[in-house]
Amino acid sequence: MIKTLLLENKIDYDGTQLQPHWIYRNFGVLGDAVTAFTGEVNVALDEMVDLTDVKEREFIYSPLMLNFIIEHFTTDLELAVYRQLIFMVAIKEELEQFEINVKRIGDDLYVNRGKLSVSIATSSAVSTLIHVGLNIDTEGTPVETTGLRELGIGDISSFAENVMLRYKRELERIYEARCKVRGRAVEC
Amino acid sequence: MIKTLLLENKIDYDGTQLQPHWIYRNFGVLGDAVTAFTGEVNVALDEMVDLTDVKEREFIYSPLMLNFIIEHFTTDLELAVYRQLIFMVAIKEELEQFEINVKRIGDDLYVNRGKLSVSIATSSAVSTLIHVGLNIDTEGTPVETTGLRELGIGDISSFAENVMLRYKRELERIYEARCKVRGRAVEC
Amino acid sequence: MIKTLLLENKIDYDGTQLQPHWIYRNFGVLGDAVTAFTGEVNVALDEMVDLTDVKEREFIYSPLMLNFIIEHFTTDLELAVYRQLIFMVAIKEELEQFEINVKRIGDDLYVNRGKLSVSIATSSAVSTLIHVGLNIDTEGTPVETTGLRELGIGDISSFAENVMLRYKRELERIYEARCKVRGRAVEC
Amino acid sequence: MIKTLLLENKIDYDGTQLQPHWIYRNFGVLGDAVTAFTGEVNVALDEMVDLTDVKEREFIYSPLMLNFIIEHFTTDLELAVYRQLIFMVAIKEELEQFEINVKRIGDDLYVNRGKLSVSIATSSAVSTLIHVGLNIDTEGTPVETTGLRELGIGDISSFAENVMLRYKRELERIYEARCKVRGRAVEC
Amino acid sequence: MIKTLLLENKIDYDGTQLQPHWIYRNFGVLGDAVTAFTGEVNVALDEMVDLTDVKEREFIYSPLMLNFIIEHFTTDLELAVYRQLIFMVAIKEELEQFEINVKRIGDDLYVNRGKLSVSIATSSAVSTLIHVGLNIDTEGTPVETTGLRELGIGDISSFAENVMLRYKRELERIYEARCKVRGRAVEC
Amino acid sequence: MIKTLLLENKIDYDGTQLQPHWIYRNFGVLGDAVTAFTGEVNVALDEMVDLTDVKEREFIYSPLMLNFIIEHFTTDLELAVYRQLIFMVAIKEELEQFEINVKRIGDDLYVNRGKLSVSIATSSAVSTLIHVGLNIDTEGTPVETTGLRELGIGDISSFAENVMLRYKRELERIYEARCKVRGRAVEC
Repeated sequence: MIKTLLLENKIDYDGTQLQPHWIYRNFGVLGDAVTAFTGEVNVALDEMVDLTDVKEREFIYSPLMLNFIIEHFTTDLELAVYRQLIFMVAIKEELEQFEINVKRIGDDLYVNRGKLSVSIATSSAVSTLIHVGLNIDTEGTPVETTGLRELGIGDISSFAENVMLRYKRELERIYEARCKVRGRAVEC
Repeated sequence: MIKTLLLENKIDYDGTQLQPHWIYRNFGVLGDAVTAFTGEVNVALDEMVDLTDVKEREFIYSPLMLNFIIEHFTTDLELAVYRQLIFMVAIKEELEQFEINVKRIGDDLYVNRGKLSVSIATSSAVSTLIHVGLNIDTEGTPVETTGLRELGIGDISSFAENVMLRYKRELERIYEARCKVRGRAVEC
Repeated sequence: MIKTLLLENKIDYDGTQLQPHWIYRNFGVLGDAVTAFTGEVNVALDEMVDLTDVKEREFIYSPLMLNFIIEHFTTDLELAVYRQLIFMVAIKEELEQFEINVKRIGDDLYVNRGKLSVSIATSSAVSTLIHVGLNIDTEGTPVETTGLRELGIGDISSFAENVMLRYKRELERIYEARCKVRGRAVEC
Repeated sequence: MIKTLLLENKIDYDGTQLQPHWIYRNFGVLGDAVTAFTGEVNVALDEMVDLTDVKEREFIYSPLMLNFIIEHFTTDLELAVYRQLIFMVAIKEELEQFEINVKRIGDDLYVNRGKLSVSIATSSAVSTLIHVGLNIDTEGTPVETTGLRELGIGDISSFAENVMLRYKRELERIYEARCKVRGRAVEC
Repeated sequence: MIKTLLLENKIDYDGTQLQPHWIYRNFGVLGDAVTAFTGEVNVALDEMVDLTDVKEREFIYSPLMLNFIIEHFTTDLELAVYRQLIFMVAIKEELEQFEINVKRIGDDLYVNRGKLSVSIATSSAVSTLIHVGLNIDTEGTPVETTGLRELGIGDISSFAENVMLRYKRELERIYEARCKVRGRAVEC
Repeated sequence: MIKTLLLENKIDYDGTQLQPHWIYRNFGVLGDAVTAFTGEVNVALDEMVDLTDVKEREFIYSPLMLNFIIEHFTTDLELAVYRQLIFMVAIKEELEQFEINVKRIGDDLYVNRGKLSVSIATSSAVSTLIHVGLNIDTEGTPVETTGLRELGIGDISSFAENVMLRYKRELERIYEARCKVRGRAVEC
């Protein structure tokens, strides 16, 4: 089903990566995929797709983030927002393995009032796209943040792999749950 | 949007309540709705819609459960499974308010290896339906279980209200998230 | 459900207002919405989305129109055309309250052979958009027209509110009609 | 596109005609179709699909109605409710040709407080179905009604043909409206 | 993606096998699947889902057929008919490997005027279902038929495997074709 | 349903013709349509929508092709790929009338290892679009090709008409197949 890809090279994220086929064009992986990479995150207002942030002029900056780009080749934006939420839950539950208590408010994750994540889901002409960034370091971030390093997550690659695997398994389980039930066609 | 309804009377659940319009016919609430009630749960194999359980002959019994019935008037079963998952996450996160650590495996919730929940999503000719049951008491359950009472949740009604409210807010937030983003129509 | 918004300031309409999120960006209303405002209407051919008009080089001009912009955050263009038609019927039926006989031909409204309205529905990457304009004054219009002023509609704001309210109620009733019926699953 | 069929023989309507493939099985017309016939209408509660009427125990009776059965081979019930509304508008506008003022409230038609119509839309496993009945005679109806005969509609067959033709043309026009517009893909 | 399953035991087909979850309940394969088996085929009129055949009272009989049952867990019946057609093309093209010229008329296959196949696609509450039968022997069939045996296909199991594999690959290729193209979002 | 249009004038194809409404804007045919014309084909990389070809820098050139442009006013790209495949099958089966054996590999057609066709399906904001080109002549093509002329197809116009007619009939038959079956709503 969905393919996972951990990229070893640093890639700075400025919002232009949230493009249809960015994964296929750059890494040759065709079809539904999630990819992870680290790099500086710096999204100027005119590259932002979250219009609430644009209205409130809240740009995004982090010196080093673990980034995930997810592309699903369906165009249902509402479904993409459900999937984004499930991805955030996967991160929260992976952090709970390290006995870190995470508070989720919508699609944002917090640890002790520090904001850990940025996240957005959008649609293209042929697909839906999700970006999730988790602070690794936090110097210079515009709001109060926390980062994976201070939370004690040393092996970022392994953490990224586990999150992607959780997401992949969740999607597989959802598919099986959808296939295993009888309908309730007749109404008594 | 979705209406919530806490029922004061005990209602025993035997699977026949997982019917289209059960909420409307019995309580007059029309449209997407989630309702909560307590009662004995006893679902015989021929009323079960989970065919994996049917194959493995795993009937459901609990002397007292907090039950939720959710009906959405769309027929997309995959979407219903996403919503079911989000409802289970809402329960988990409400329990975390009480500093109870919950482990979610798919759409099942566990506390210290005791199974807290049963849950299923299915579709009817006009809607999708979700049942979630949380043990309050656990005497006589066929597997190792835990219940809300032993977890220290005294005010079941208030707990039920909070879970329904979390779900309602999550759906509202998902709608807003869907509405606030620019598309990425053009591919560079 | 759908939000309604009457704008007090004059806004000239040149076609660029038929944009996704125009309502949210300018007036802060997020989600499905209908907004009304008055202003000159002057749509050059290259801003027109109706390709039949473009082929026939029929630009749109009116010195003063009551304009409605409607945005629904689904992308089904066929559904948007159904909704556009229902909006035109709402206008016709509101005018009937004033004992004005209106003839509807498709999505155009006529009173005594004078054309009262212009209207179009289109889709964006994230939503569907409808524009409806009703002549208030008619000097300089390129075809034979009639206007709300000569029809005796003095209180344009109140008229606009009523039309938006009719549309809102119709959508709510459609939702309820969809939710209240049993399916006919089994074929005899 | 949609086929129209005027049936010459009287057929009494008791609700069982609102079945998938009723038109095809009985009259050999395959695909989307609307058919008209006259007959007594007598729908007992257990054949009714409108659960609001069932709750309020409002059965349907009329000594003679002009009935329309419409079947569309898509299963989107919301779309069926939109189409039902457009069919009711087609009837209203055909009556306006006879200078009869009709008040539409949702999917009901009234002339001078007399109820002219009954109507319902539902879905089957393979299609959506609409029934519309217009009183011809009104003796014995359970509520205050009016009928086509007292409204001066003498030629019921011709009236039925015209309504079906209006509906057919409206659907064709909606299709053309959907096909003739440019999208607004790019958001400025 | 789709799973394939060749059944070694003979199974007589009487139409009741065209049921949602027949594959899962009997063989434990969950999700989209195609299965092949041989057996007598004898479908009485009241088990037939093809209403044209029912109207014309054309029952189905063959002393021995290679049967395929396909289940996809989406409910779009139109899509199922496209898939059925592609499955028939896969059979035709597999036969061409044996230098057998096959004429396809709709979803029927003929060799030298002998009818080789029966086929139908339908929908259930949770899935779509396809049955395809290819005559192996032809004694007693109600119309002029041909069979795989007289066409020289000796290894029925291997033939069945190849057809299922062709179908599986075609679906995979369709998915890749859907994922590899840029949209044409902007209209010049 | 779908309209067919054979264009007499030569039109060179450079990829820009694969635009929404190209048929309507240039030839006035509104709605779902397939059109055929001959001309040189020369698609530079930056006009190509097949990203696999773009990655492999495989431009398209043919001195003379029979081209088909198909536009369907639905935006489901997966469905468009199914339709593209059915169109390729229609070409293959039309060639079989001339006793020409054609090998189909995905959406490519080959005769004796010579590639006969190019083909792509994509989506726009309002429609889906398919281009199919069949070599008539083959001088200067970048890969080993075959052409209709060397295959003995003398009357290109008549061949084009027949292929379009086959496609039209196939779509009509698919619609009828979708309409004629009973659902399998109830699961035993």
